[in-house]
Amino acid sequence: MYRTKTCGELRAANIGENVTLAGWVQRVRKMGAMTFVDLRDRYGITQLVFDTETSDELFEQANQLGREYVIQACGKVRERFSKNNKIDTGDIEILVDKLTVLNKALTPPFTIEDNTDGGDDLRMKYRYLDLRRNCVRSNLELRHKMALEVRKYLDSKGFLEVETPALIGSTPEGARDFIVPSRMNPGQFYALPQSPQTLKQLLMVAGMDRYFQIVKCFRDEDLRADRQPEFTQIDCEMSFVEQDDILQTFEGMAKYLFKEVRGVDLGEQPFLRLSWHDAMKRFGSDKPDMRFGMEFVELDDTLKGTGTFGVFNEAAYIGGICAEGCASYTRKQIDELTDFVKSPQIGAKGLVYARVNEDGSVKSSVDKFYTPEVLAQLKEKMGAKAGDLILILSGDNAMKTRKQLCELRLLMGQRLGLRDKNRFALLWVVDFPMFEWSDEEQRLMAMHHPFTAPKPSDIPLLDTHPEQVCADAYDMVCNGVEVGGGSIRIHDAELQQKIFEILGFTPEEANKRFGFLMNAFKFGAPPHGGLAYGLDRWVSLFAGLDSIRDCIAFPKNNSGRDVMLDAPSIVDEKQLDELCIALNLPTE
Amino acid sequence: MYRTKTCGELRAANIGENVTLAGWVQRVRKMGAMTFVDLRDRYGITQLVFDTETSDELFEQANQLGREYVIQACGKVRERFSKNNKIDTGDIEILVDKLTVLNKALTPPFTIEDNTDGGDDLRMKYRYLDLRRNCVRSNLELRHKMALEVRKYLDSKGFLEVETPALIGSTPEGARDFIVPSRMNPGQFYALPQSPQTLKQLLMVAGMDRYFQIVKCFRDEDLRADRQPEFTQIDCEMSFVEQDDILQTFEGMAKYLFKEVRGVDLGEQPFLRLSWHDAMKRFGSDKPDMRFGMEFVELDDTLKGTGTFGVFNEAAYIGGICAEGCASYTRKQIDELTDFVKSPQIGAKGLVYARVNEDGSVKSSVDKFYTPEVLAQLKEKMGAKAGDLILILSGDNAMKTRKQLCELRLLMGQRLGLRDKNRFALLWVVDFPMFEWSDEEQRLMAMHHPFTAPKPSDIPLLDTHPEQVCADAYDMVCNGVEVGGGSIRIHDAELQQKIFEILGFTPEEANKRFGFLMNAFKFGAPPHGGLAYGLDRWVSLFAGLDSIRDCIAFPKNNSGRDVMLDAPSIVDEKQLDELCIALNLPTE
Repeated sequence: MYRTKTCGELRAANIGENVTLAGWVQRVRKMGAMTFVDLRDRYGITQLVFDTETSDELFEQANQLGREYVIQACGKVRERFSKNNKIDTGDIEILVDKLTVLNKALTPPFTIEDNTDGGDDLRMKYRYLDLRRNCVRSNLELRHKMALEVRKYLDSKGFLEVETPALIGSTPEGARDFIVPSRMNPGQFYALPQSPQTLKQLLMVAGMDRYFQIVKCFRDEDLRADRQPEFTQIDCEMSFVEQDDILQTFEGMAKYLFKEVRGVDLGEQPFLRLSWHDAMKRFGSDKPDMRFGMEFVELDDTLKGTGTFGVFNEAAYIGGICAEGCASYTRKQIDELTDFVKSPQIGAKGLVYARVNEDGSVKSSVDKFYTPEVLAQLKEKMGAKAGDLILILSGDNAMKTRKQLCELRLLMGQRLGLRDKNRFALLWVVDFPMFEWSDEEQRLMAMHHPFTAPKPSDIPLLDTHPEQVCADAYDMVCNGVEVGGGSIRIHDAELQQKIFEILGFTPEEANKRFGFLMNAFKFGAPPHGGLAYGLDRWVSLFAGLDSIRDCIAFPKNNSGRDVMLDAPSIVDEKQLDELCIALNLPTE
Repeated sequence: MYRTKTCGELRAANIGENVTLAGWVQRVRKMGAMTFVDLRDRYGITQLVFDTETSDELFEQANQLGREYVIQACGKVRERFSKNNKIDTGDIEILVDKLTVLNKALTPPFTIEDNTDGGDDLRMKYRYLDLRRNCVRSNLELRHKMALEVRKYLDSKGFLEVETPALIGSTPEGARDFIVPSRMNPGQFYALPQSPQTLKQLLMVAGMDRYFQIVKCFRDEDLRADRQPEFTQIDCEMSFVEQDDILQTFEGMAKYLFKEVRGVDLGEQPFLRLSWHDAMKRFGSDKPDMRFGMEFVELDDTLKGTGTFGVFNEAAYIGGICAEGCASYTRKQIDELTDFVKSPQIGAKGLVYARVNEDGSVKSSVDKFYTPEVLAQLKEKMGAKAGDLILILSGDNAMKTRKQLCELRLLMGQRLGLRDKNRFALLWVVDFPMFEWSDEEQRLMAMHHPFTAPKPSDIPLLDTHPEQVCADAYDMVCNGVEVGGGSIRIHDAELQQKIFEILGFTPEEANKRFGFLMNAFKFGAPPHGGLAYGLDRWVSLFAGLDSIRDCIAFPKNNSGRDVMLDAPSIVDEKQLDELCIALNLPTE
């Protein structure tokens, strides 16, 4: 061992001990006849002292040290003259009597500090240096702890972690598969799993009863800001359960994790459960941020046909939110909000506002179209009080307008400081629709996935009004982020067949893709259901990160590249030949 | 919840309780006015009783049940008339008053019993039924427990589990990579990791200090009997350590696992450490089975030039083993051994034997070439006693002959019952050679991998006699199986460059493939080393399995196929087009 202690463990009680430390040079400060070196490792920072009194040679050696040199230092622990109460080792320092340079270092291209001067691209290229920063490393420590506690909890509840294969068959439903050519089976391809969904269902058929896995999954999607082509899922499944059993089990897990990993007590009360329909109606989102209220108020009764404002009179939906204490917003601030809702990614036509003055009167951007009585009714309906600002959107598509109003609500929540990263509001959104219509594909698509069970009471509707069928599906939502989701699954081969039909599969297609599952159902499949969490997202939530990238050791950029490894890359012709494939690049 | 209890938990203390169970019908026995059903789930088997006294209708319903039907049964726990002490629930049974069939089952294609009538192929095709068998499921339970305990142990020692990416760059050194076409980067490919070797080294450069990961790895090799294209590694790395630190840490882990998972106390003593050279000399193997002795004795002094047997006189190596109490082997038995060593997979030219008779005289197959004195010397040299059988191989290549003798030793150990699956003999094999000559490639190859550090004292030899250089590399061996292996790594860019040169890489090639690592070494790499265990192999060792296949939920066959999923398979033309690749199949 190159050390007897780490850089994080020495305290006043160790004064007088002879120790050996090893680590990286964080900082060198020369003060006349003394040189101070901050030595860093994963566990902390310890101050080393070199003085001319001990050895001129050693002192000179210390003065040659550069940032990020790897050194080993032996010496005696002594009390520090000026203590540093910002670090755990701040009471002591080491008077060094022997120094060994274990490895030199080029000057790093950015500073190894929490507030680094390195931009994103540079940090990713030199990720091994970026990871030396406390703030990045601590995310990985959190991730480790979180995964460990998940395993402890699920093990204690009788779940078995079973590894499912990474090389499976391609079932192009949902996102695109990454595929892997098979050398031993020329012309054939494996696919990397988008999730172990069908395999975990087979484990239920196999009688495993309670399964989980923390597992890499893969989706070949065009990457949005916060997506990675490979991501990690906490994947769970249980047999002989109904929805409520699953919600209780995983509510328990969430509470356990918040307590053990984040030190937050979520209390005894069960999580709020909101139907998808209510969530959309009240917050315009299937993952509402419940850290604050600002619920939607539907204003059709109040503003449609009660004045001469044509936009409202023709709207299919009029909804408002009340921003407390914002009546004082300037024209400029209101304009900003208007620009926001009219931006292409939101897509609203305009924003109507109404200020509630200190005297209780209402001053609105549509004053000329409505009587003061109507505006007073508006105030009352909105529950607005003096000093509040009412913000109203309308549109000819209720669902679209709600989603626009949701974005406005989130923005106002942000502005009003109602989205504190250290507060956590969890809930279940339940009763999702089974299907949603795809304009692109011109057919019904599974809202969750094709293995989701319809609510038993809705099964008769499958034949007549499939679009009205609710699913036994649920999402766990925290602070406006979907952290996990799942469903009760179909365990009956015939019902599964019918769902595939509704989704537009011919029996042959369904059989080709999912025959192994429907066949398995014929040999005694138990009722079962489960859910999956996105580990990356959950860790980033716990860490208070805006992006999942910094809780991943070696993330990829938006083009799916690892810029550190320079992957993907071209491969040898010989490799392609062995795999019986050839490049087929578009000609310019 | 479909049940109030599992099928494994009811005891005499529960007599009189009303319970609901759910599970699979293992067996139906009709005994006149009573029908007994064994109900099975993951946790055990409970006997259900249906009688005409309770309800004729229910009784009839029970008689309709088939094997593997999924049912729910409500009833009262009562004492069993004839107790079954083979199962934990054998004191009780349930007098059923309500029965619900949750799912019917086709008759499974093989019996769901430990001694099934299903052949390998059928079992793999219906793996979800095969996994219902206790003996298969218990392997997965063991695997779960093992992985959990590994994590507990390493966490307690300060190791962080860090996930490394599965989509990396291809570095074709060693086995073949599986490659994955990148749609977003046309013409370029990711590779699936053969191991996270370079990434874990980068984590050491990043200051993670102690890393581990239980991780899927991939090798596109022609599959031998007991290999899988995807396998799971317990991958570990530590900074600021020397070889001894690593051996101690992981010896500790092995002892912990044997105790916690297998209930075996390996004692306080450190594991035996055998140099690679000694292991080859004494057992002809770098993974000797130390459950028994039967060490090699080199017989050149005794048998070369001391008689007229040309084969020995011209041999480069003559070695023998002494099989205790086997002097009574018949001609037929000896012929079997001769056939074995002459078989193509062993490749020896012949076998010489010598029986030690009860009177101490020696009767040998080469009697006519040697004087009785020489044979007496042979007996003495071999330490053979009356009743023993001496088996001798010779050849013109010492290393090849040793490997042949090793196979014979293992066979004799097997025959003599010296390879008990419930005994465990662990050791470290250390001081491997850095390089081995490849006739195929006509160059030196890394025996471990190119990142392995040479023993510091051997570094000068790199320039003059690289083939003589020993590596700081080590394998953990248990019962003749290499369960893990690793090395101290190079942390110096220049030394790494030199090793690549010796391996025949041009500086450009080395830089293209491993530039990211050598570059990282320039920014302050700490001394580091580690090792990796094969989880599949270790679980199969603990489970006493002959193959790793039965400790994997969904294994692939020798053609790399998952016969249950029918993967790999052909994919849509559209998928290939999007990836800018085309099939390039050989024309007949």
